[in-house]
Amino acid sequence: MMGADFHFRDKVQVGILGATGSVGQKLVQMLARHPWFMINALAASERSVGKKYKDCVHWLMPTLLPQELAEMEVSACQPGLPCRVVFSGLDSSVAGEIETQFAEAGYIVISNSRNHRMDPDVPLLIPEVNLSHLELIQFQQFPKGKIITNPNCSVIGLAMALKPLFDRFGLEAVHAVTMQAISGAGYPGVASLDIQDNIIPFIQSEEEKVETELLKILGKFQDGKIDPCSFKISAQCNRVPVSDGHTACVSVKLKSKATEQDLIEAWDAFSGAPEIVKLPTAPEKPLYYFHENYYPQPKLHRLIDKGMAVSIGRLRKCPLFDFKFTLLSHNTVRGAAGGAILNAEILLRQGQIFW
Amino acid sequence: MMGADFHFRDKVQVGILGATGSVGQKLVQMLARHPWFMINALAASERSVGKKYKDCVHWLMPTLLPQELAEMEVSACQPGLPCRVVFSGLDSSVAGEIETQFAEAGYIVISNSRNHRMDPDVPLLIPEVNLSHLELIQFQQFPKGKIITNPNCSVIGLAMALKPLFDRFGLEAVHAVTMQAISGAGYPGVASLDIQDNIIPFIQSEEEKVETELLKILGKFQDGKIDPCSFKISAQCNRVPVSDGHTACVSVKLKSKATEQDLIEAWDAFSGAPEIVKLPTAPEKPLYYFHENYYPQPKLHRLIDKGMAVSIGRLRKCPLFDFKFTLLSHNTVRGAAGGAILNAEILLRQGQIFW
Amino acid sequence: MMGADFHFRDKVQVGILGATGSVGQKLVQMLARHPWFMINALAASERSVGKKYKDCVHWLMPTLLPQELAEMEVSACQPGLPCRVVFSGLDSSVAGEIETQFAEAGYIVISNSRNHRMDPDVPLLIPEVNLSHLELIQFQQFPKGKIITNPNCSVIGLAMALKPLFDRFGLEAVHAVTMQAISGAGYPGVASLDIQDNIIPFIQSEEEKVETELLKILGKFQDGKIDPCSFKISAQCNRVPVSDGHTACVSVKLKSKATEQDLIEAWDAFSGAPEIVKLPTAPEKPLYYFHENYYPQPKLHRLIDKGMAVSIGRLRKCPLFDFKFTLLSHNTVRGAAGGAILNAEILLRQGQIFW
Amino acid sequence: MMGADFHFRDKVQVGILGATGSVGQKLVQMLARHPWFMINALAASERSVGKKYKDCVHWLMPTLLPQELAEMEVSACQPGLPCRVVFSGLDSSVAGEIETQFAEAGYIVISNSRNHRMDPDVPLLIPEVNLSHLELIQFQQFPKGKIITNPNCSVIGLAMALKPLFDRFGLEAVHAVTMQAISGAGYPGVASLDIQDNIIPFIQSEEEKVETELLKILGKFQDGKIDPCSFKISAQCNRVPVSDGHTACVSVKLKSKATEQDLIEAWDAFSGAPEIVKLPTAPEKPLYYFHENYYPQPKLHRLIDKGMAVSIGRLRKCPLFDFKFTLLSHNTVRGAAGGAILNAEILLRQGQIFW
Repeated sequence: MMGADFHFRDKVQVGILGATGSVGQKLVQMLARHPWFMINALAASERSVGKKYKDCVHWLMPTLLPQELAEMEVSACQPGLPCRVVFSGLDSSVAGEIETQFAEAGYIVISNSRNHRMDPDVPLLIPEVNLSHLELIQFQQFPKGKIITNPNCSVIGLAMALKPLFDRFGLEAVHAVTMQAISGAGYPGVASLDIQDNIIPFIQSEEEKVETELLKILGKFQDGKIDPCSFKISAQCNRVPVSDGHTACVSVKLKSKATEQDLIEAWDAFSGAPEIVKLPTAPEKPLYYFHENYYPQPKLHRLIDKGMAVSIGRLRKCPLFDFKFTLLSHNTVRGAAGGAILNAEILLRQGQIFW
Repeated sequence: MMGADFHFRDKVQVGILGATGSVGQKLVQMLARHPWFMINALAASERSVGKKYKDCVHWLMPTLLPQELAEMEVSACQPGLPCRVVFSGLDSSVAGEIETQFAEAGYIVISNSRNHRMDPDVPLLIPEVNLSHLELIQFQQFPKGKIITNPNCSVIGLAMALKPLFDRFGLEAVHAVTMQAISGAGYPGVASLDIQDNIIPFIQSEEEKVETELLKILGKFQDGKIDPCSFKISAQCNRVPVSDGHTACVSVKLKSKATEQDLIEAWDAFSGAPEIVKLPTAPEKPLYYFHENYYPQPKLHRLIDKGMAVSIGRLRKCPLFDFKFTLLSHNTVRGAAGGAILNAEILLRQGQIFW
Repeated sequence: MMGADFHFRDKVQVGILGATGSVGQKLVQMLARHPWFMINALAASERSVGKKYKDCVHWLMPTLLPQELAEMEVSACQPGLPCRVVFSGLDSSVAGEIETQFAEAGYIVISNSRNHRMDPDVPLLIPEVNLSHLELIQFQQFPKGKIITNPNCSVIGLAMALKPLFDRFGLEAVHAVTMQAISGAGYPGVASLDIQDNIIPFIQSEEEKVETELLKILGKFQDGKIDPCSFKISAQCNRVPVSDGHTACVSVKLKSKATEQDLIEAWDAFSGAPEIVKLPTAPEKPLYYFHENYYPQPKLHRLIDKGMAVSIGRLRKCPLFDFKFTLLSHNTVRGAAGGAILNAEILLRQGQIFW
Repeated sequence: MMGADFHFRDKVQVGILGATGSVGQKLVQMLARHPWFMINALAASERSVGKKYKDCVHWLMPTLLPQELAEMEVSACQPGLPCRVVFSGLDSSVAGEIETQFAEAGYIVISNSRNHRMDPDVPLLIPEVNLSHLELIQFQQFPKGKIITNPNCSVIGLAMALKPLFDRFGLEAVHAVTMQAISGAGYPGVASLDIQDNIIPFIQSEEEKVETELLKILGKFQDGKIDPCSFKISAQCNRVPVSDGHTACVSVKLKSKATEQDLIEAWDAFSGAPEIVKLPTAPEKPLYYFHENYYPQPKLHRLIDKGMAVSIGRLRKCPLFDFKFTLLSHNTVRGAAGGAILNAEILLRQGQIFW
């Protein structure tokens, strides 16, 4: 492992699969000035191949598309891209197969898609939460390539907020009702006629993802595999007219007794391993607990700590469970592009990108 | 009791307390063409007294203010109003005392405020749910007047959807997360800078109201008082950028076994007493169950059946409780002005307004 | 012509072309309980043909889909439908040809599409504004059928508000900046990611429609054709995050001198011909002038007079033109489905549907 | 004047008047990490004096309030504050007198309020547009203090976009319709019930400000005073449901002939004086012209170049004027706090803060 004064001679060349989609765009935006990575390939579906990126992307980011990327020619999503690492923001209808092809061709695949998340040898990685799961990639069968995934945007906040409670007090049951931002549905995604002044009380497959991914993420790596944990989860997922930031109302039943102060201390003390904290995209503090009773709020807190921290508030006793609280995480940053980039950073930092 | 061919020679003259507020305005709008009631007095706080209604109201309703009401002079909120019934949309900071004064002066007070809701001799009335509670008014100590209240806007949908489950299967526990419309906060209420593209995870005293009012509403009237029921409730209340219509994600634990089909049948079969169904403001059907998994939605369903019905959907098994589902009710109609008017209608229909 | 005690023995059977689209749905909603028309056919594109209407429509209206229409089998958009009149809410990519086929097959085509609007023998009809244009249909070359169109949703409010000014004072120039609702773009139409908390300063072909349709509408019928008027128009069209209701900021230069009071009187005096006022869908008053300086507002005024009236306010002198003012009209009611239905009503009332 | 390698030994201590208001908060946010200024005093109205800033501010910024400012005790808005420069975000009901007091007491007052904007000896300053107006402060009668103002948020974009056209082609007439963000109204400002899904076609005094401030800003400094220019302006101002960013649809009549290309070149070539470009808060490029016809959009472009640039698009011929186009500027950054800070920076850069 490298020291704190870690520097690279040259940036690592990366490609983005699904570069015109909304996760792809966020990856482009966040990687455009990344200190360690340099975008060397933008790949998308057939109808974009051969065009300049600016001519086939409906750019939705609130920053100008950098000139050199605007002019870059879009490639097909096939191995042969001039890079070592590919970030995948592909739609799940095609992600599974394409990502496998890239891994087989020797690429490190940093995926935000759901297809390989539950594969037994693929880490569903949140560096601050389950860094040990990264060991799984040694068991992957690709000659040189690897696949690493990050969780669904509705799961990331829960996983990070629950991790310190799970470690200190044990979890028996988790009940979560989410209020999810429209950007979570991609582009064009939710029609304005459907969501303006409205709530949609259903998101396809979302509740299932919460109820399964969380158990893997908090599971234990041993004997070359993940032993998922076994507490019960019930999720209800809603789409709300908020641009970015997923909010969740959470109730938890713990295994051991704890006070409200104990929980807040657990959250305040929570931090990733020392090598994580210094990563370019890592938050200074992964969890922020707010004592004001009207916090957290998506408009105010989704972007704190570069959009990579999870905000928590309103902890109080629950008449049915032990405690209830509210949490918030940025779905396209921490819950998608930023999470993927952080995963790539820890890989690079651990020297695994150079295998 | 009068027959089905029930007609009044003259309309009953009514007054509205707090007529310039948002509940007051909704009362004005709904009573302006009511077949049984005629607005004869508009009362508001000191700074409006003596002015024409149109000159002191910031009219927020999507219909034109009727000419005769626009020109009506606003009175003070003191007994002496030329009517027999007063509807109160007063702010809770003043409602308690003023409503008592009116009741003591012999008025029938139909209140939407929270102040007297938990008084032991005051019905917290939803005609389809607990009509028997109306007996309580015989025990009120006013010489002639009476006070009848309707529940908080976040409680009404829960009470109506849970009533048939409570009756058929018994309730052990109820967990509710609400997503409440901005109109529930009155005017000016929520600042646009606070709620546009945002969620506020806190509404003052709202969770307490859900957790207490529900037990009284579903309680049993006997021996001249209400015996509240005793299941456990946990509520988490959020403000969302929706104009009208409170949505709730509900989980329930029942006392006896039931299937999803049993619950849907219970909801479908639910109806008020026959004399309620024919009231001018009563819904044809109090509960609508939708089988489409993306329903109910505030924008589509808040106004069905004149805004007086509760919509339910997404019933499914819950890994932690027995079942979970989503419900929706119109907060300023069924949850405020419409609920109050329905209460007045049943009183009139039962002949109690002429005591 | 029939007398004021006009009644039909039987309702006229009508069909709706493009019944699953957003204009089609509004037509279904408004015709479902129409006193003169009965929906006898719902037609849509190939992928819906043969299915029940409820199974192929993404119902967006805030009222329940009537049961008998929900179960109706969807037909193809081809002559042979069991009705005499067809309302067309077809997309302009296919409307031109299909509408012509229906007219040739003998149907009365009441179209909301743009394709035939500028045809020399097709009335671009607003009954209160240019009823004489209806004479044009005598010159249509179809053996029995006819085509009548109503204007674009961004034009209707302008045409109605300008008509009395044009008649009394003459128009030299009109400058209009519109702020148009999302429902004007159909479904799925505008993506929520594009319009939430945003303005899009461009709507394809919209400015051209304003600048051409208005001149035909206010033109004079003589010698079997419309002589368009010739004042200058400049339009700037924007999409804004409003559900329904197009607002326009208008500046006008008149031919003759007039005071603000003169204009208001012209608007107040404006009315359609007597036989129009009594039509089921006609507004009691086509134009409402508001003296409050913060009116009109889409949320408050789009639905006045069944959504069929145009609201005007803020009339004041303009340093560059003579006057400026703001107007509002409901784009899917007066500007689409309601306008079409009113056109069909006047045809029926004039006995022309039975030719 | 100092050289390009300009550095200060110590940061200049500044105070903020009206620090709890929405402009005040934006000033706090932007000055919290300013390279040249250090906040040394936070002043607000009586009810906040003596409290910690965090306890009397309803913090609306999407970044955390820095700890040292959160704990700072709020002072009264009276001379005696430990600083040399005060930024004023005071409400106009009190700003006039308080700002005069501070100037008389020797402070440099950088004001965002409207009260002194039209004073003959007070610069209404936009550094890129009218830097020469700064000479006016030599004629101010305060012993040591000075007052400098920046324009209203609805004027700033117009002034910047029109400046190069005015200089190159001359202006005869300007017609502007604005669509203004809710943040322009301060806090609590616009009630959500008034603006959600709505447009308010009126903003108190706003049209007058556009029609007067613009003429002073583009006026010529000579003989110790500003000679305002004399073209005609007509403004129509609307409030729309957008969080930040004022959009305007503009039509212009020029004095000399020009092509669309000429205008775009004028905008592209526009830049402030060299000493302005290097100021910490100055945009790299004051004006961005977009060739995409659906740009500019508030959600995408309000924050480009730190929120300090003006975006322009949709230039085309106008049937009534010569040209029409759309512009966008960030109302609380370029149009308020950022504009004020840039004014302070140029003062400091020119050595005038040390007079």
